[in-house]
Amino acid sequence: MNTIKDYIGEHKERFLDELKELLKIPSISADPAYKSDMLKTAEAVKERLMEAGCDLAEVCSTPGQPVVYGEKIINKDLPTVLVYGHYDVQPPDPLDLWDSPPFEPVIKETKIHPEGAIFARGACDDKGQMYMHVKALEYMTKNDELPCNVKFMIEGEEEVGSEHLDWFIKEYKDRLANDVILISDTGMIAKDVPSITTGLRGLSYVEVEVTGANRDLHSGLYGGAVANPLNVLSKMIGSLTDENNHITIPGFYDKVEQLSNEEREKMAEAPFSLDEYREKLDIDAVYGEEGYSTLERGSIRPTLDVNGMWGGYIGEGAKTVLPSKAYAKISMRLVPDQDWKEITELFKNHFESIAPKGVRVKVKPHHGGFPYVTPIDTTGYQAASKAYEATFGKTPIPQRSGGSIPIVSLFEKELESKIILMGFGLDTDAIHSPNENFGVWNYFKGIETIPWFYKYFTKLSE
Amino acid sequence: MNTIKDYIGEHKERFLDELKELLKIPSISADPAYKSDMLKTAEAVKERLMEAGCDLAEVCSTPGQPVVYGEKIINKDLPTVLVYGHYDVQPPDPLDLWDSPPFEPVIKETKIHPEGAIFARGACDDKGQMYMHVKALEYMTKNDELPCNVKFMIEGEEEVGSEHLDWFIKEYKDRLANDVILISDTGMIAKDVPSITTGLRGLSYVEVEVTGANRDLHSGLYGGAVANPLNVLSKMIGSLTDENNHITIPGFYDKVEQLSNEEREKMAEAPFSLDEYREKLDIDAVYGEEGYSTLERGSIRPTLDVNGMWGGYIGEGAKTVLPSKAYAKISMRLVPDQDWKEITELFKNHFESIAPKGVRVKVKPHHGGFPYVTPIDTTGYQAASKAYEATFGKTPIPQRSGGSIPIVSLFEKELESKIILMGFGLDTDAIHSPNENFGVWNYFKGIETIPWFYKYFTKLSE
Repeated sequence: MNTIKDYIGEHKERFLDELKELLKIPSISADPAYKSDMLKTAEAVKERLMEAGCDLAEVCSTPGQPVVYGEKIINKDLPTVLVYGHYDVQPPDPLDLWDSPPFEPVIKETKIHPEGAIFARGACDDKGQMYMHVKALEYMTKNDELPCNVKFMIEGEEEVGSEHLDWFIKEYKDRLANDVILISDTGMIAKDVPSITTGLRGLSYVEVEVTGANRDLHSGLYGGAVANPLNVLSKMIGSLTDENNHITIPGFYDKVEQLSNEEREKMAEAPFSLDEYREKLDIDAVYGEEGYSTLERGSIRPTLDVNGMWGGYIGEGAKTVLPSKAYAKISMRLVPDQDWKEITELFKNHFESIAPKGVRVKVKPHHGGFPYVTPIDTTGYQAASKAYEATFGKTPIPQRSGGSIPIVSLFEKELESKIILMGFGLDTDAIHSPNENFGVWNYFKGIETIPWFYKYFTKLSE
Repeated sequence: MNTIKDYIGEHKERFLDELKELLKIPSISADPAYKSDMLKTAEAVKERLMEAGCDLAEVCSTPGQPVVYGEKIINKDLPTVLVYGHYDVQPPDPLDLWDSPPFEPVIKETKIHPEGAIFARGACDDKGQMYMHVKALEYMTKNDELPCNVKFMIEGEEEVGSEHLDWFIKEYKDRLANDVILISDTGMIAKDVPSITTGLRGLSYVEVEVTGANRDLHSGLYGGAVANPLNVLSKMIGSLTDENNHITIPGFYDKVEQLSNEEREKMAEAPFSLDEYREKLDIDAVYGEEGYSTLERGSIRPTLDVNGMWGGYIGEGAKTVLPSKAYAKISMRLVPDQDWKEITELFKNHFESIAPKGVRVKVKPHHGGFPYVTPIDTTGYQAASKAYEATFGKTPIPQRSGGSIPIVSLFEKELESKIILMGFGLDTDAIHSPNENFGVWNYFKGIETIPWFYKYFTKLSE
């Protein structure tokens, strides 16, 4: 299978152009204003799947955003790989921090990517990584190298909690039958340090609203005598962590898996430079839970982060207003064996209980997902490991990520197969941030590595 | 002087229409986009002053917004009243909470104002109250009832801290010479409980910025390991008050005037119903500093209020971002003998000192002003008291307000005269809030009362 490299070399420009076309459509699932762009993106993915060699591809309606399903069945007795990805993207704001418009993809050279990187919202997360699989399929079908069956399930609600994928999986259960689920929606340690993600954190995302008086008040006339929702909300949020940055919600840590010292020591062997980390982020110090390293804080420990907060006057200049309402979006990343529904309930009860008299508090659960950990002794993991060896010349490092793909634990439960997370993104890709980008090198390396996975997975499954 | 009532009766509609015209111009001093509307408003005020009988009126340039100066000198040996007011208004946001557009004045009947109230930004604060003085002058000049000299100083930066009025007062010191300064920019207790404001709180207004990493981060990948500016800012703000709602900034209370028990008992005699207060604001409980009543918390005690706060994703739906920056606008209301410049410095030092490692904090002072208290045994106060008696049939109650007119203490210092605060607004006028309004009854009552002040002030000054 040396020809995959040649094939990429021949079709380089087209592979980039096709991805750029996809990136131009603002498929922002969080904002209802982009509903027709969502459908347009789904249709485009469907067409690309057919062109890449699928026998069948459909834009399937759901109670939410449509899911693109595609398949190429070569022999029912051979194994089946189910590729999962998503065509929706995060909102691009704050827009003024982008160096180029988020939906006008451009390729620019960077320090990390001297070969160039594609800058656009969704470049890495997940249009770029999803499209690697489409192009890998194209190579395999055009060169008679597809060794097994393949199915695609590309959804449009990953960035908003995959609310209706549950419904889709149950409805399409038979058609989705597979032997392994392959996902590229994570990262790797470095360009020369390949890694396979073996764990993901769970998520509970809530929105809170604190109401004081029934209208905005003059802060001179009422200040000091009436609860100020912004002061109160700050105090409430401030109290959710103690002086050691432990989360204070009663019961929050009850089910947190405690890693053995041996496991923690093994984790500490992963290549990591605190100095480089600080330097890249331009911070004088890291910040987190006492008693845990930066790598541990970002993977095996749960968190509580305010993702957005607002209230009162936020324009230019000064306005002496005592606002009627204050809001925050808060997410908690969860680890095995925390149950996101239980944590959401714990948060809600605690938050309501700490509200002082004089304000009313509403907690609105947004979405969530279970944490996920996968063993490394499976056929799927072994096949992935060998694929990386073939293209990177190195054995990949198993790594637990701090991110979440809330739906992953559901896949395992409903579809009864293991999930393999082959991510080709880098830390510096700025996913969910302004100037998201994906290295051209990484994009091609993904396309190159994926067919090897199919080959080894089929072989090891014999 | 019974004819003032008749005069108002005859010119009612015109008095309302003229005020409405003024209210249509969006003179928002906080927003540079309204610069030409500011000038337009100043020009309109100048013309109205001339029409009302001034000998001279000018739009005077300053390093900031222009000040309108006007005068009618009838005899140099007679006393001179200097009227101060402002033609700028607060920003109208949040716009969606207005029942009618803020710059399209309409008269609507309300429970408190069965005679109707004018709804518009600035209706009470301060275009409506300032214009009462213009119409009172018109009555006096047209009916040969002006007993003394009058000067007007109507500025355009009151809502943003009167930054350049200092310059204006020093520059125009001679022309501004007067025997008493008359201001209608406060309220009274109720329509049947007239009151004169004898104290104003000072103000220190600052903006704070907390920066974590150099860019927005993915809260899954970095959450728990890097300082989140919103979590940190919440915690910092939360720590600025203790469990008794005392402000924790070292030195903050050092110069606070402690009222005697006698003075506090006298204050407690003012008519006030906690039930009505709660009901009007739709709150289950008041909230404030332990050991002080609601009236005290809102007048003789200093405060710390967040007037606006923002950071991260504040759009629809969910975005799992760990923001790079978080902001808050914070104002402190001050009481005698706190020095706003000293308090601003104390705040800055304290706020910077409590910032944890991993974030950078900037404190930007906005503006401020000194608190003000005036005695009630002056000629000006006595004249005002008699004027209210003439039109309300009741002796007004001296009252300390929680609001601030930062420039007032400067007037006393530079112009060496006493300030009389005859306010005709009500608590429910929603100044600085959506649906600001000013009772038609209050507007006319102000126009009716003012000429009596001139009469008694001239008489008592003999």
